[in-house]
Amino acid sequence: MTMPKGPQAFPQAEYLRRIAAVKAEMERSEVSSLVITSPADITYLSGYTAKSAYVPQALIVSLKEEEPTFLTRRMDAPAALHQTFMDRSRVIGYPEALIADPDKDGFDAVIDFLRDNRLTGGSIALEQKYLSAKLVERFKTRIPEAKIADFSDKVPWIRLIKSDLEIATMREAAAISDAGMLRAKEVIRPDVREADAAAEIIATLVRGVNGKPGTDLRRVFLCASPRSATAHIIWSEDVFRQGSQINLELGGVRHGYVSALMRTYSIGKPSDRLRRVHDGEVAGLEAALSTVKPGATCGDIAVAFNATLKKHGLEKESRCGYAIGIDWTEPTASLREDDRTVLQPNMTFHLMLGNWIDEDFGYVISETFRVTESGAETFSALPREIFEI
Amino acid sequence: MTMPKGPQAFPQAEYLRRIAAVKAEMERSEVSSLVITSPADITYLSGYTAKSAYVPQALIVSLKEEEPTFLTRRMDAPAALHQTFMDRSRVIGYPEALIADPDKDGFDAVIDFLRDNRLTGGSIALEQKYLSAKLVERFKTRIPEAKIADFSDKVPWIRLIKSDLEIATMREAAAISDAGMLRAKEVIRPDVREADAAAEIIATLVRGVNGKPGTDLRRVFLCASPRSATAHIIWSEDVFRQGSQINLELGGVRHGYVSALMRTYSIGKPSDRLRRVHDGEVAGLEAALSTVKPGATCGDIAVAFNATLKKHGLEKESRCGYAIGIDWTEPTASLREDDRTVLQPNMTFHLMLGNWIDEDFGYVISETFRVTESGAETFSALPREIFEI
Repeated sequence: MTMPKGPQAFPQAEYLRRIAAVKAEMERSEVSSLVITSPADITYLSGYTAKSAYVPQALIVSLKEEEPTFLTRRMDAPAALHQTFMDRSRVIGYPEALIADPDKDGFDAVIDFLRDNRLTGGSIALEQKYLSAKLVERFKTRIPEAKIADFSDKVPWIRLIKSDLEIATMREAAAISDAGMLRAKEVIRPDVREADAAAEIIATLVRGVNGKPGTDLRRVFLCASPRSATAHIIWSEDVFRQGSQINLELGGVRHGYVSALMRTYSIGKPSDRLRRVHDGEVAGLEAALSTVKPGATCGDIAVAFNATLKKHGLEKESRCGYAIGIDWTEPTASLREDDRTVLQPNMTFHLMLGNWIDEDFGYVISETFRVTESGAETFSALPREIFEI
Repeated sequence: MTMPKGPQAFPQAEYLRRIAAVKAEMERSEVSSLVITSPADITYLSGYTAKSAYVPQALIVSLKEEEPTFLTRRMDAPAALHQTFMDRSRVIGYPEALIADPDKDGFDAVIDFLRDNRLTGGSIALEQKYLSAKLVERFKTRIPEAKIADFSDKVPWIRLIKSDLEIATMREAAAISDAGMLRAKEVIRPDVREADAAAEIIATLVRGVNGKPGTDLRRVFLCASPRSATAHIIWSEDVFRQGSQINLELGGVRHGYVSALMRTYSIGKPSDRLRRVHDGEVAGLEAALSTVKPGATCGDIAVAFNATLKKHGLEKESRCGYAIGIDWTEPTASLREDDRTVLQPNMTFHLMLGNWIDEDFGYVISETFRVTESGAETFSALPREIFEI
C-alpha cells in the first residue's frame, strides 16, 4: 500500500508561484541548482512540516524541473509523501545507515543526487549561513566542477511578502493566540502553579478555535514575578501570588505559520509604575502602527515608536519588532531605526514591545500585523490592556 | 532591585564537578579557553534553560577561573542571573544593538570579552561542528594570536555518563512520560480530533506528576492511521476512527533532562500483523536489555536486538537507539552494530524501536534506560503492550 496524500494546506498553484519566485532569484544570481536546508524554507516551498530537521535533509530546486525534490531520511519519506504537494517521485528517502555514521551522512546522499541527475553544471547554491564550514567544504570537494554559491536568506526575503492565502492562515493562527491569552485570564490565580496555568494555555493553543486546531506548538513564555524582567523563561516551578505580574508571549500556529502576541497580566491592581509603562507603550504602539503604509520603511515604524516612548519618559533598548511568518523571528526585515526596508502590502511583522527595563521589572505588549494598501491590519482582536485578575 | 537567584536544579558542587571534567579535557587538548555555544552544553555547565539560543550566546570556560562566564543578549541576562549557579559577575548582557545589525553580532561581544580578559593566549576552542564557516573565520581573523581549535561534541561525551543526581532527575522526567502515555489511553477515542487528544497529553506533560511539574516541553509525535508509517508528524487535523492505530512518542522533562518513551495504541483489536510485529519487537527489546552491562558495547545491544528481530521475520533499518539526556538525541554513542562505545554505569540511552516498515505501516515501542553496575534499569513503569482502546 502507498501513503496517501494528506489534505494540502495550500493549492499546488500557490507552491508553484513561490517556486517561480525562487527560480527568478536563482536566474538573477546565476544559480542553476539550489539546495534548501532551512526548515522554514522547506515548509514554504513544499508544505512539509514534520520535525526531522535534526538530521540532514534538503529540498533541491533545479531550473530544469518544475517541482523540487526532497531528500530526507528513509523513515521520514512517508511523512513527506503525505504532506508535500509534489509528485511521489519527488520524495527520496536516503538509507538509515547514513544516520550516526562517523564517515558520511545524508548530505552525501544529497551530493550523490546532484551528481546522478547531472545538476552539478554551473553554480550550486547553499544556504551557507546555516551550514558548518566542514559541510560547505564537502560540497566543494565532492563537486569540484561546480561553483558553490551562497543563497542564505534569499528565500526568507521572498517569504517576506505574503500571499492572501498566507495572510488568511496567519489570521487563523491569530485567533488561536487570542484564545490562549483569554484562557490565561481564566487560569492565572493566586496559589496556582505556573505549570498548571501553562498547561491550560498550551492545551488551548493545540485545540485551536473555530474548528481549526493548532497544527503545531511554538514556545510559550510565561515570565511571572519575580521574573518579569526575563524574556525567554517558559515557566517555572513557582506559584502565582496576590500582586504578581505575569508577562505572557505565545503564538498560535496554522500550517507552519505563527502569529505572535504578548500581553501583561496583573493579579490585583497594577502598580503605578506598571500602569505608567503600559500607557507609554500603548501610545508607542499606536504611533508605530499609524506610520505603517506602503512606501514607509521599517525604520520609520521604529522612529515613531521610540519618539513616543521617549515622550513618556521611557526607552526600549531592543528593536521593536521583526518580520514574522513561518519563522517566529524571520531573518530579514527588522523594526529598528536603521532598517531601510520599504514596506509593501502583505508584509507581516511582530511589533514586539517587550521592554525589560530593570533587572527585576519588565513589561510586554505586542501586535502581529500586516501592511495593507493604506495602513496596518492587526490580527488580534484583544484589547490593548493590562489583564487584571 | 536585583534579580534573585531561583531555586537551583543541582547544587553548586555538581556544576563544579562537571566543569572540572571539562577542564581536564581542555588540558588534555591543550586548550586554554573554551567557547561553549551548544544549548545543551550550556545547560549542563551552568543550569541555564531559557530559550535564547536563536541569537548568539556563549559560555566561556577558562582554565584560569573556577566559574564560567555567560555572555548573552542584554534582555536575557536577568534569566541567566536567575537560573545559573554562577556569581552575578559571571553573567554579562551584550547590547541589544548587536541584534539584527548587518555588520556585527553577539559573537563580536564574545570576542571582545576574550580579548579584554586576556583569554586569547594559547588555544581557544569552539564547538565548530555547529558554527558557520563565516563565524569560525571571524574568530580567526579577530584573534590572530590564538590557535582556534575544535571542541565539537567533547562536552556531550562527558555528558554521556550521568551523576546520580542527573539519574534522579531523569527518573522524575520518566514518571511524567508515563503519565502522558496513560492520559493518551484515556483520551484517544473514535471521532476525537487528534489535536484534542494531543492537547490533553501535552497538558499532562506540562503539569507533571508527584508534585513535580514538567519544566519544559519537547516534541510529541502522534502518528495515527493512515500515518502510522510516519515518524515525526506531531499530529494532524484528522480524527481517530474505529480500527485506527496510533503511534505515540513523547518525553517528560525535568530541569532540562528528557526521558523519552514510545507506545502503540489500537482502537479496537490490533490486527494480526500489528500483534506479530509487537511480539517480535518486544522480544528484541528484552534481548537488547539483557545484554546491557558495564563492559559490553553499544554494538552488542544492537546485535542482540537485530538478531532477535530477525528470528521473528522482521528487520529494522534504522539504528535501535542513542544516548539521551539533555538532548533527546545526544550526538555521541549510538545503538548501532558498528558502535564500539563501551557501556559504563549511568550511561543513559533511548532504546528506540520505532519501525516504519512499509509506506503505510509502522509500529513503535521504546524504553529509556541507564546502565547499572550489573545490567539495565528502565525508567518507565508502563507495561510493554499495545494499548488497546
